[in-house]
Amino acid sequence: MKKALITYDYGEERMAELAKVFDLTYHYEGDIESFKDSEDIEVLICYSPFKNLNIDDYPNLKWIQLSSIGFDQIPRDKMVGRDIIVTNNQGGYSKPMGEFIVSKMLEVYKHSRNIYDIQKTKKWKMDTGLLELVDKKIVFLGTGTISKEAAMRLVNWEMDIVGVNTKGHQTEYFDRCIAMDHVADEISDADFIVVALPHTKSTEHLVDEKMLSHMKDDAVLINISRGKVVDEMALTEALRRGKFLGVALDVFDKEPLDESSPLWSFDQVLISCHNSWISERRNERRFNMIYANVKRYLNNQPLKNVVDLERGY
Amino acid sequence: MKKALITYDYGEERMAELAKVFDLTYHYEGDIESFKDSEDIEVLICYSPFKNLNIDDYPNLKWIQLSSIGFDQIPRDKMVGRDIIVTNNQGGYSKPMGEFIVSKMLEVYKHSRNIYDIQKTKKWKMDTGLLELVDKKIVFLGTGTISKEAAMRLVNWEMDIVGVNTKGHQTEYFDRCIAMDHVADEISDADFIVVALPHTKSTEHLVDEKMLSHMKDDAVLINISRGKVVDEMALTEALRRGKFLGVALDVFDKEPLDESSPLWSFDQVLISCHNSWISERRNERRFNMIYANVKRYLNNQPLKNVVDLERGY
Repeated sequence: MKKALITYDYGEERMAELAKVFDLTYHYEGDIESFKDSEDIEVLICYSPFKNLNIDDYPNLKWIQLSSIGFDQIPRDKMVGRDIIVTNNQGGYSKPMGEFIVSKMLEVYKHSRNIYDIQKTKKWKMDTGLLELVDKKIVFLGTGTISKEAAMRLVNWEMDIVGVNTKGHQTEYFDRCIAMDHVADEISDADFIVVALPHTKSTEHLVDEKMLSHMKDDAVLINISRGKVVDEMALTEALRRGKFLGVALDVFDKEPLDESSPLWSFDQVLISCHNSWISERRNERRFNMIYANVKRYLNNQPLKNVVDLERGY
Repeated sequence: MKKALITYDYGEERMAELAKVFDLTYHYEGDIESFKDSEDIEVLICYSPFKNLNIDDYPNLKWIQLSSIGFDQIPRDKMVGRDIIVTNNQGGYSKPMGEFIVSKMLEVYKHSRNIYDIQKTKKWKMDTGLLELVDKKIVFLGTGTISKEAAMRLVNWEMDIVGVNTKGHQTEYFDRCIAMDHVADEISDADFIVVALPHTKSTEHLVDEKMLSHMKDDAVLINISRGKVVDEMALTEALRRGKFLGVALDVFDKEPLDESSPLWSFDQVLISCHNSWISERRNERRFNMIYANVKRYLNNQPLKNVVDLERGY
């Protein structure tokens, strides 16, 4: 049997499933430097052990399966000349993230935070400022699985659902998709803008001062993908001027977000700490994805979620 | 032209529309006792003037169009022997209410209130307890327009959507509907229970100690219709024992909810002050409904939303 190293314990039953098909070793990721028997490891199932794991010590490594979507943790320089396939958990968190997007949309429109504050006072007070989503327009920057899961859930909400991708290819659940070249026109009358793009050279600071200026003052901006896609300085300046009905940020340029960041304090900003992907089913879904890829690997079928280290997603 | 009295100002343009078809008088509802020219009024468009308006002074009144869904404000004893049609705004608030239901579902599952509390501390902290809606079961008590608007919005959320109505007649957007006789079985494994029943003799305290006991300890209970459908004492007792993952209450036995009510303070309770129907489009939608009924009235067509004062909805 092929030798595999796994750095997360998915529970007795699931580990037993893997041990049926691999010569499997479990070793805790936080202590990976003490694992020495790396010579014959062919498969590595992990999250982020590479600070203390030298790929050079794994001469027979052929496949790295990550449990994350991002793969910045992969030491690209060490991968050169090695024929190692890297797969990620693309789409594995998209369902809870799709739900989280709709939750933040509703929290802004339904004044949820203000209603909690009213409850604390124990004084009966209706908030007459609640808004409805009917006939509003939402623009998703990126039409990958996260946007699709959100758009799918919004299909019956009587909204105008627009997706923006590189070439404007039409995608299920969006009323229409347009090319990134035309994004300025499209966001100028959007009520909601959702940032759901991976962080690459071409998306870094894509949402910059200029793009923010195209957005309506009473728009709602949601970023659940990567902080570096938004120019945080420009966003902070816009917020200082009172722009935006609401901004929900789950990701930041630097994480953890520093206590000194002004973003914590704006009335119109909802901060969550890289939290949108969390669900009670994360391990189950993660394992199912890994196990399905393991079966493909052993059957010499093409793996799912192969990442392109150069392209960045 | 027929004489009509309207007690709410829908704005110049809309009032002009009505004045084209009626001999229209506008008189502020809060000062209705000073309106004396009631003899020939045939149509009354109002919300709740009846404390200071004696229907006996309106001998030619034929139609009362209410702007509310509820019609407890109608003086039933004074209506006996009078041939007055009463219409309400049935369905007129259902879209924002449907959205509000989903908002509260998500707020409970996505720990929104806790995430706001984390933001206040300005300390980076992920909440690992968030849940997802996928494969969860929701039971709507009542399958009227409010439930339908919520169920319609949840169609693509991969949930099991069950409606409960008197005879179990099948209704669009619900995966299935069952008769009220079988409600106990159906709610025993429900993750969400939404109370969306009108208050009538047969629904008063329908959600009593026994029905609450059938619900799972980690269920989420949402009431957005009428407080008296739920036995508030029994609910309070259940909450004291720590039952329910979340309870969102927008309506109460007595409104305004008194400052001394224990409901304000439970960790698992989200209180809003009869707020679910509010949207920026409430006047537009209310007027459109009224105007459509006005046209029917003048064309001798059957009116929409005729209420049965005896039946209670």
